Amino acid sequence: MSQDTRYTVIGAGHGGKAMAADLAAKGFAVTLYNRSVERISEIAVCGTIDLEYENGISRCCRLASATSDIGEALEEADVIMVVTPASAHRDIAHSCAPHLHDGQIVVLNPGRTGGALEFRQILNRLDCAADVIVAETGTFIFASRSTGPAQARIFRRKNAVPLAALPAVHTGHVLETICDAYPQFIPAPNVLHTSLDNMGAIFHPALALLNAGWIERTRGEFQFYIDGVTDSTSRVLEVLDRERVTVAAALGVRARSAMRWLKDAYSAKGDTLYEVILGNPGYRGIKAPRNMRHRYVFEDVPFSLVPLISLGTQFGVDTWGADAMVRLACVVHGTNYYERGRTAEDMGLRGLRVSEVKRYVHEGKIKPIYAFADRGNGRSRQRAALSVERT
Amino acid sequence: MSQDTRYTVIGAGHGGKAMAADLAAKGFAVTLYNRSVERISEIAVCGTIDLEYENGISRCCRLASATSDIGEALEEADVIMVVTPASAHRDIAHSCAPHLHDGQIVVLNPGRTGGALEFRQILNRLDCAADVIVAETGTFIFASRSTGPAQARIFRRKNAVPLAALPAVHTGHVLETICDAYPQFIPAPNVLHTSLDNMGAIFHPALALLNAGWIERTRGEFQFYIDGVTDSTSRVLEVLDRERVTVAAALGVRARSAMRWLKDAYSAKGDTLYEVILGNPGYRGIKAPRNMRHRYVFEDVPFSLVPLISLGTQFGVDTWGADAMVRLACVVHGTNYYERGRTAEDMGLRGLRVSEVKRYVHEGKIKPIYAFADRGNGRSRQRAALSVERT
Repeated sequence: MSQDTRYTVIGAGHGGKAMAADLAAKGFAVTLYNRSVERISEIAVCGTIDLEYENGISRCCRLASATSDIGEALEEADVIMVVTPASAHRDIAHSCAPHLHDGQIVVLNPGRTGGALEFRQILNRLDCAADVIVAETGTFIFASRSTGPAQARIFRRKNAVPLAALPAVHTGHVLETICDAYPQFIPAPNVLHTSLDNMGAIFHPALALLNAGWIERTRGEFQFYIDGVTDSTSRVLEVLDRERVTVAAALGVRARSAMRWLKDAYSAKGDTLYEVILGNPGYRGIKAPRNMRHRYVFEDVPFSLVPLISLGTQFGVDTWGADAMVRLACVVHGTNYYERGRTAEDMGLRGLRVSEVKRYVHEGKIKPIYAFADRGNGRSRQRAALSVERT
Repeated sequence: MSQDTRYTVIGAGHGGKAMAADLAAKGFAVTLYNRSVERISEIAVCGTIDLEYENGISRCCRLASATSDIGEALEEADVIMVVTPASAHRDIAHSCAPHLHDGQIVVLNPGRTGGALEFRQILNRLDCAADVIVAETGTFIFASRSTGPAQARIFRRKNAVPLAALPAVHTGHVLETICDAYPQFIPAPNVLHTSLDNMGAIFHPALALLNAGWIERTRGEFQFYIDGVTDSTSRVLEVLDRERVTVAAALGVRARSAMRWLKDAYSAKGDTLYEVILGNPGYRGIKAPRNMRHRYVFEDVPFSLVPLISLGTQFGVDTWGADAMVRLACVVHGTNYYERGRTAEDMGLRGLRVSEVKRYVHEGKIKPIYAFADRGNGRSRQRAALSVERT
C-alpha cells in the first residue's frame, strides 16, 4: 500500500508518535519532527516506531525520516500535522514560517481555542508569502500514549472529529486531502466552532483546581471525573460552560452545552451535568493528574480559558467564572497566564465586529469598507496585517 | 461566689451555651436568649446547663433565665455577649435596638470583619438613642461544643483574645467591666485591628473551596489543615493573606501575617506558610467539614471576605484573590454573597478618608471640618447618620 500525500508530523509526544506511526502503517510517507533531538534520536537510528493498536496487535512502522531540522521537515510535506500542546503553537508558527511553501496544509491537532487563528496571524505578521492553508481540529483523533522511545500505543480512535480550515472555504479541500488517512474528520462550519466547542476548557482547569488539595496530598489517587465531580464542583463547571456557550452565541455560533456534548459523544444519561458525568462509562478509570504541573492547567488555562475570556471581553460577555479559574491558576503556578495566554489580539480579531469576524473565518477577508478605517489606537496596523490574508 | 455584673448571652449554639454556663458557674447572673424557643426550651424548664470543662469535670450551672423575648433578655443586662455566626449580627442589632438602655455594653464574640462597625451603624440608622458601647473580639474565647439540649463542653480556653470597643476610647471601660469574668481579653488598638486580624477569612473559604471535591466525595474524611493544605492551596492562602495585610496597611493597621500569627499563637515552626501549617500541632485532628454547607463558606465569605474586598475597593487595594474565592462561593451556594455580605457602606465607612476612619474608630467622630461636606451622592445622609454617634 503506497499513498501519494506526504505527511510531516510535528511533535514526538504521546500523540505525535502514534499519528506518525499510524500514517506510516497506512502507506504514507511520514517525516516526524521534534524540536529537541533527544525525543527522536532512537527513531532516527532505527527508522521505525512500534505501534500497538486498540486490539493489542503491534506493528513496526517505517517512517521516511525523523529530524529536528524544521526546514528539512517541511521541504517535502503536503500536510503538516501539528500534534503538540497548544503552548507550542506559537513557536512552531515562528519556526515554520520561513520554510512553508505554496499548497501546503497545516493542521493543528487540536487548536484548543483560537489555534488556527493565532497561527495564521503569526504567519501574516512574519510576512509569510506562501499560499498555505491553516486548519484545526476540535480534539485529538486518538487516545494514545508514548510507551517507549520508539514505541506508541493507540487506546481508542475517535469518530467524527470536527475540522475547520481558516478560512472555511478551504475546509473541503483539507478534508479531501486527508480523507484517505483519516475519513473520521468531518467539517465544522468554521474555526469558531472547533475553537468554542473546546470541552477541555470547561472540565480540566476547574476540576484540577477545585480538587487541588486532594490531587497533591494523594498524588492523584482518585478518579478525576467520577470522584472529582461533585455537587459543588459540577456547579462551577455549569457556570463555565454557560459562559462558553454565551461567548459562542455572541459570535453567532450555536455551541453545544457540555451536557449535550456528553450525551452525544458518550450516550451518557442524566438530567444534570453532575448525573451525566457520573453516569458516563467513558470517564471510569480516568485518574486525576499526579500533581498540579499538568497540561490541564498549563495548557488549558492560557489556550482555552484566556482566549474565551478575551473574546468575552471584546463581545460583551461576562466570563467571571472563567476569570476566577485563571486567577487561581496564576497563583498556583506563580505564572501570569493572562499575559502568556492567547488573546483576541493574538487571534487577529481585536477591534473586529461580529460580522467582520464571521467574514474573516469564512472567507479570509474583512469587509473592504471597514478594512482600513482607523477606529482607534493600533487598529490600522492590525487591519493592514489582515489585508495580506490569503483570499 | 456572687458577682454584680449581669450578663445576657445571645445565641444558644455551640458557643453561647458554653459561655452562659461558664459565666453562671463563675457566679454571674446570666440570661440566655435565643430567637427560636426550641433551642432553649429544655434549659428554660430545668434552669440549668451541664457544662463539661477542659479537664473533664462537669458542673451543673444555674442561669437566671432563658428566654426568646429580646426585651426581657436585655432588660436587666449590663453586658450583652453576642455569640452567634456573623450572619445573625444584623438581625440581632435590629431586634436589640428598641430595647437597649444607657450604660449597656454589647460585645460581638467575634465580630468577624466589621461586626461592631455594622452593629453601630444599624443602631444609628434606627435612631437608637441609648448610650451603649458596642465592642468586638478577634476570635471566640473557647473551643466549645453543644453536646445536648442543655449540655455544653469547653475543649480549650484561649489566652490573650483581642477586644476593641467602637470607639476605642471605651475599650478600657469594657475590659474593666468584664475582666472579672474573662481576664484573658486584651485591648486591641481599635476595631480595625480585631476586624482585619481575622484569620478565618484567609483559611476557611479557600481551603474548603480548593478541596470541594474531596469534602463532598468523602464527607470530609480528611484533616482540614494537615491534609488540605498543600503546595498549591497554600499559595492561594498566601495571596489572600497578602491582600488582607495590604488592606490593613492602607487603613494604617499593621496586621500580622498568617505565618507570624501561627508562630505566635501556636509556636508553630517553618519558613513557609505551608511548613508552618503542617508543623502546627494545634491543627492535628481537625476534620474537614462534612459538606460545603458550612460556616467556613456561608459565614466567612460574606462577613470576612466581602468586607475585606469592599474596604480594598474603597482604599485602592486589589483583592482579586479574595474576589475569586467569593465568586466561587457564589456559584457553589447559588447565592449572591456580594449582595448579602458586609460592605464598607454597611460599616458606615463609605466615602470616608483614612484619617476620618481612624478618628471614627478611635473617638467615634469624623473631623468636624469634613463632617457635613457633601462630596457626592448619598454621603450627606451618611454623615448625618454618623453625627448621632456617641462621642
